[in-house]
Amino acid sequence: MKQVSIIGVGLIGGSFALDLLQHISGVSITGIDQNETHLNEALELGIIHQTADVESVRSADLVVLALPVNAAINVLTEVLELISDQAIVIDMGSTKQAICEAVARHPKRANFLATHPIAGTEFSGPSAALKGLFKNKTNIICELDKTSTALSLQVITLFEAMGMHIRYMTAVDHDKHIAYVSHLSHISSFMLGKTVIDKEKNESDIFDMAGSGFESTVRLAKSSPAMWTPIFEQNKENVIETLTEYIQNLNQFKAYMENNDFEAVYTEMKNTNHIKKILKGIA
Amino acid sequence: MKQVSIIGVGLIGGSFALDLLQHISGVSITGIDQNETHLNEALELGIIHQTADVESVRSADLVVLALPVNAAINVLTEVLELISDQAIVIDMGSTKQAICEAVARHPKRANFLATHPIAGTEFSGPSAALKGLFKNKTNIICELDKTSTALSLQVITLFEAMGMHIRYMTAVDHDKHIAYVSHLSHISSFMLGKTVIDKEKNESDIFDMAGSGFESTVRLAKSSPAMWTPIFEQNKENVIETLTEYIQNLNQFKAYMENNDFEAVYTEMKNTNHIKKILKGIA
Repeated sequence: MKQVSIIGVGLIGGSFALDLLQHISGVSITGIDQNETHLNEALELGIIHQTADVESVRSADLVVLALPVNAAINVLTEVLELISDQAIVIDMGSTKQAICEAVARHPKRANFLATHPIAGTEFSGPSAALKGLFKNKTNIICELDKTSTALSLQVITLFEAMGMHIRYMTAVDHDKHIAYVSHLSHISSFMLGKTVIDKEKNESDIFDMAGSGFESTVRLAKSSPAMWTPIFEQNKENVIETLTEYIQNLNQFKAYMENNDFEAVYTEMKNTNHIKKILKGIA
Repeated sequence: MKQVSIIGVGLIGGSFALDLLQHISGVSITGIDQNETHLNEALELGIIHQTADVESVRSADLVVLALPVNAAINVLTEVLELISDQAIVIDMGSTKQAICEAVARHPKRANFLATHPIAGTEFSGPSAALKGLFKNKTNIICELDKTSTALSLQVITLFEAMGMHIRYMTAVDHDKHIAYVSHLSHISSFMLGKTVIDKEKNESDIFDMAGSGFESTVRLAKSSPAMWTPIFEQNKENVIETLTEYIQNLNQFKAYMENNDFEAVYTEMKNTNHIKKILKGIA
C-alpha cells in the first residue's frame, strides 16, 4: 500500500495520514478535498504529499474516505467505479448501516471495508489532525465477510500497527449501540449549551460563574454541525429511541423533585455512580 | 487569622487548608469532621495540624464550613453561638439563599460571610484535595453588606492572595444563575449515564464503543449524591425551571428529527456553536 488517497483531509483523514507516514515507509499520500483551503493547509503541514482530483484514485492501493457520512456514500460509489481490482476503499464514518446498504449489491463490494475508528476531538480541519490519535482506540469493523480477505487483512494489519483495538459487529448493531454512547452525548451537550445560552440573552454575564464541570459537559457542543447533521439523519430511528429514553429519565428526575422525593433523587444518582468503574475502561 | 477551624475536611475544605498553609505563616489548622477516617487521612496528609470537636471553634479566628449544604445550615447556627465576636465564619456551599435566610436575623449575622468558590472536581474526600485549586477561579460572595466590614476584608484579602476572582451578587441571583451553569449540567450528566447504563443491562459490552466525548459528557455523573441531593433540594425551584427548559429543547430537537427537518437540526447546532467563544473565558 504505497499509494494512498485520502478523501477529506480534516481531523480524521489528516490524523490517519500522519500515522500512515509513520507506519509505511515510502508511502505517497494524495489529498483530495472540495475545500481548497484545507488542501493547502494539509500540504503545508506535511500531512499529504500532493493534491489531486478524484480521478487520481485509479492508481491508489488504498483509498480512505474521511468525509461527512452523506458525502461518503456518494463518493464511495464513484470511487468503486474508478479503482483497480487490487485496491481497497475504507470509510471512517460514525454510521455504518446506510453506507453498507448503499453498496450491498455493488459489483466491487469486496473492495470496500466499513470501519469506524472511535477517535476524534471536538475540533475539525487539517490543523486539528493529531499524530497517534488512533492509539489505544477501538475501531469497529462491520460486515467483514463482504470484503476480500486478502485486502481487508492488509488494512487490519495497518490498524493494529497504529495501536487500534479491533471489534467486529453488524452494521445494524453498530448504529444501535453508537447512538447511546456517542450520538446521544452530542445532543445532550448541544441542548445544554442552547438552554444556557438562551438564558444568557436576558441575564448578562452568567458565564464567569461557569466552572470546569459545565465546560466538560458542553464540550461536544463545539462539534461541527456539517458533520453531525447527516449522522443524525442516517441514524434517525436509533437516535430518536435514545432521546426518548433520555427525556423520560429527565422527566422522572424532575417529577421526583416536584414531589419532594429527595430520597429517590439520591438513589437515582447513587445508582448511576458506578459509571466510575465503567469509565475506567475508556482510554 | 492564626487559628483556623475547617469543618468538613473533604475536597474543598482540604484544598482550602492546603492554600492556608501556603498563605498564612504560622497558621494552626484544626480539622472537625464526623467522618473519623477523613480526619485521620487529613492529619496524615498534613492538611490539618490537629483534630477536635465543634466546641473548639471558641478559640478560632476563622471557621470554614465545607459541608453538604443541608449540614452547613445546622452547623452554622451552632458555630455562631460558640465563636468570639472577633471571629468570622464562612461557608463554601453551592447554594446561598437557604443559608442566608437561616441566619438573616441571627444576632451574630455580621460574623458570617456567604461565599461560593466555583472550584472542585468530581472526586471527594481529603485525598482529593489539591493545592492551588482556587487559583483563577471565581468566588461569589453574597450579601456582603450584612457582614462586618473589618472581618470580611480579612477573608477577601486572603481569597485574593489565593488567586480567586471575587464577584458580588444577591443570594437570589446566585442560586438562579448557578442552576443553569452548574446544577443542570450535573443532572444532564447523571441522566445520560443512567440512560446508557440501563441499556447496557440488556446489551452487553457497549462501553468499549464509548470514546472520550462520552467520557467528558458523563464525567459529572461520578459526583457525590450526598453532596448534590441537598443542593437540588435547596435550589428546587430554579433547578426545576432549568430542567423544564432543557427538556423542552430536547423535545424540540427530537421533533425536528421526527419531521425530517434536518435543516432545523443543523441550525440548532450551528446557533449553539458559539459556545466555543464563551467557553474560552472559563479557566
